[in-house]
Amino acid sequence: MTTGLPAKLKPAARVTGQRQDVWSIINEAAAASPKQPIVNMGQGFFGYNPPNFILNAAKAALDKVDCNQYSPTKGRPRLKKAIADAYAPFWGRPLNPDTEVTITTGANEGMLSAFMAFIEPGDEVILFEPFFDQYISNIEMPGSKIVYVPLHPPKDGPTTTSSASNWAIDFDELEKAITPKTKMIVLNTPHNPVGKVFSKEELQKIGDLCVKHEIIILSDEVYDRLYYVPFTRVATLSPEIERLTITVGSAGKNFYATGWRVGWLMGPAHLIQYVSAAHTRICYSSVSPLQEACAAGFEQAEAEGFWDETVRDMRAKIARFVAGGYFVMVNMQKVQVPADYPFPPHVASRPRDFKLAWFMIQEIGVAAIPPTEFYTDANAWIGADYMRFAVCKEDDVLEAAKERLRGLKKYIKA
Amino acid sequence: MTTGLPAKLKPAARVTGQRQDVWSIINEAAAASPKQPIVNMGQGFFGYNPPNFILNAAKAALDKVDCNQYSPTKGRPRLKKAIADAYAPFWGRPLNPDTEVTITTGANEGMLSAFMAFIEPGDEVILFEPFFDQYISNIEMPGSKIVYVPLHPPKDGPTTTSSASNWAIDFDELEKAITPKTKMIVLNTPHNPVGKVFSKEELQKIGDLCVKHEIIILSDEVYDRLYYVPFTRVATLSPEIERLTITVGSAGKNFYATGWRVGWLMGPAHLIQYVSAAHTRICYSSVSPLQEACAAGFEQAEAEGFWDETVRDMRAKIARFVAGGYFVMVNMQKVQVPADYPFPPHVASRPRDFKLAWFMIQEIGVAAIPPTEFYTDANAWIGADYMRFAVCKEDDVLEAAKERLRGLKKYIKA
Ligand SMILES: Cc1ncc(COP(=O)(O)O)c(C=O)c1O
Ligand SMILES: Cc1ncc(COP(=O)(O)O)c(C=O)c1O
Repeated sequence: MTTGLPAKLKPAARVTGQRQDVWSIINEAAAASPKQPIVNMGQGFFGYNPPNFILNAAKAALDKVDCNQYSPTKGRPRLKKAIADAYAPFWGRPLNPDTEVTITTGANEGMLSAFMAFIEPGDEVILFEPFFDQYISNIEMPGSKIVYVPLHPPKDGPTTTSSASNWAIDFDELEKAITPKTKMIVLNTPHNPVGKVFSKEELQKIGDLCVKHEIIILSDEVYDRLYYVPFTRVATLSPEIERLTITVGSAGKNFYATGWRVGWLMGPAHLIQYVSAAHTRICYSSVSPLQEACAAGFEQAEAEGFWDETVRDMRAKIARFVAGGYFVMVNMQKVQVPADYPFPPHVASRPRDFKLAWFMIQEIGVAAIPPTEFYTDANAWIGADYMRFAVCKEDDVLEAAKERLRGLKKYIKA
Repeated sequence: MTTGLPAKLKPAARVTGQRQDVWSIINEAAAASPKQPIVNMGQGFFGYNPPNFILNAAKAALDKVDCNQYSPTKGRPRLKKAIADAYAPFWGRPLNPDTEVTITTGANEGMLSAFMAFIEPGDEVILFEPFFDQYISNIEMPGSKIVYVPLHPPKDGPTTTSSASNWAIDFDELEKAITPKTKMIVLNTPHNPVGKVFSKEELQKIGDLCVKHEIIILSDEVYDRLYYVPFTRVATLSPEIERLTITVGSAGKNFYATGWRVGWLMGPAHLIQYVSAAHTRICYSSVSPLQEACAAGFEQAEAEGFWDETVRDMRAKIARFVAGGYFVMVNMQKVQVPADYPFPPHVASRPRDFKLAWFMIQEIGVAAIPPTEFYTDANAWIGADYMRFAVCKEDDVLEAAKERLRGLKKYIKA
């Protein structure tokens, strides 16, 4: 990769030697496919706009001088307050917008800020596998070692459309993964890519282990408003657990505006203050006028019936496509790709799901995400029979997908 | 700072032990001053809005589905092209928007991405002193050692309003600072806080040293459109220098929209590709609809006469206030603060300029920035007699400032 560069100009290890990421492989293949227009159910961005009351608030903010200039590094006061107010009911107490909420440049940079705030080189972070791929570089940047604990897939995968909640934790495995160097654990519920919503009992057990070993819990709950199964927030289980917990949110996911890059972290002041400090060093501050729009979003969402509408829409989309969540993991063990099908080297070298994804893009014009990207190499076999579909797309896209997926029938073995 | 936190929860060194930053000290003191409304010439954000053609482009982008969703990680194609086209005349050749330009979350995160891309722990980065304070944490985050080289202030500081270009580099000092571990040097022209615009001769000498020792040049040129003295871009001096140079820009500074968090880096593909890779790991992507608006900004600025207007406005503001640049460094050696004046501990513990800033906020209601924040402790004395005023403010603010600053007369010793 670094051919031609003299030794003194060579890039740091943290940005080299990585293979091409799944998003570019799939997006580029989709763009180049002969089956245009492609039905793209790959990346989980939305196929529709944020609601008008939020867009209007963004436009109004653009007319205000102070909204176009630097936001305070911890976020605009109105947005911190709107988030504190929106989440207080779940916490069962008022949240302090100045000490318990901090705004970040998307959930992504928020999580990086949390790792930068607490990880010293050599510390360990526990991560369930499969995982959202962006975590890896975020955890490794401050020098942490990642310790993987598998989510075990449902045994009946290939035959029934089983619930995502059946992806199971082995708590012995989890406890064995803990060492004196374990500084943090990352939770992700609702889960990307498997769609699992962790149960209260599972979260209680994880929380108890973290209290016992004093481990900081980073709970990525960016899909909190898009699911309709009972949803538990680990921070609310007990004061002992809350004391250790940082909860991650994303206005991009909440308001169909992934391109706005507004996220936030909530938690006790003794943790949040260091997250804010790290964020200041990484991005200085986050996009100002769109923070103001997100503030309006949180202030008005309830009255506008927006949260209910979100769940209703998503439920309808899911029903339209197949039973599952915001992401749908479909077991494709029975789909047989012709033995002599030609793959380019960057696909040929990857597990079966990458080949299946490539095949689908070329032959039926549907793009989806091969989930082995979310596994370490050793465990990739677990995901190799699945395909991840994002259902947050316009209804006509979903209909077209269903129609085109029927084209796979002829490749299904009995 | 970490009282009450058990050892296992303690934050990383990179976010602790730092004293309060100058921006919060001055902004908080200004907010609490008895002299309201305060005339705030502290932070370099603009006291006015981006021009209408850019605001309108932002509003139009908010109505487009794809503009509200994730931008490509390297930036929206339209913005990369608009920047390549806008800078091609300065480079004297077409720039490749896909390989030679990458979009970041403000110049700030862009520079962090550059350090993350090239610095391994133990590498050294050369920085002129005084320096924009945010560089420090950005350089230290990937584990670099900073080697400081002073800009020597004009000898006639206290008596005349001397040109900012008189802050001088001692090239022997610079060459002595280079070691086999020197990986990068940071330039900043036009310079914050002293306002110096580096001359072509100075840049040529620096460039030659970097070619000789193979040092990557990170040239922070975020104020490139706000000055009217002859301005040289180091990357354009020779192919040998260009090969080593990453140029940093900020749409926030260019378009009076510091809160938008749109910046970019330009340079040869063999450097930019790793900057992009680091940016993807830090922020994933940058704010999408406002990138589109900035694209319109670059596309139309020339035809709208915006760049000329910018320079004309800034020249008028500077003339209105005092001779100098976007930032004006005023020597205040002759202002005498009463010996028994009471200072709070976080100000009392800092050099004279912090006390002067506090005194001005309390007594005459003008906020400005004490420049010793931009020095290491050992060299703070060099800046202790100065005060930095940002002149990018509404004209009535500048008039009020002049009026109020006359109130200092009675404290001037003969
Ligand atoms: C689990 C998970 N966390 C975080 C993010 C990033 O959210 P944001 O766009 O707010 O950075 C994503 C985006 O896909 C995600 O799936
Ligand atoms: C010299 C210098 N570089 C970079 C920046 C940061 O620019 P941005 O707001 O685009 O991150 C500033 C802001 O004050 C600055 O003064």
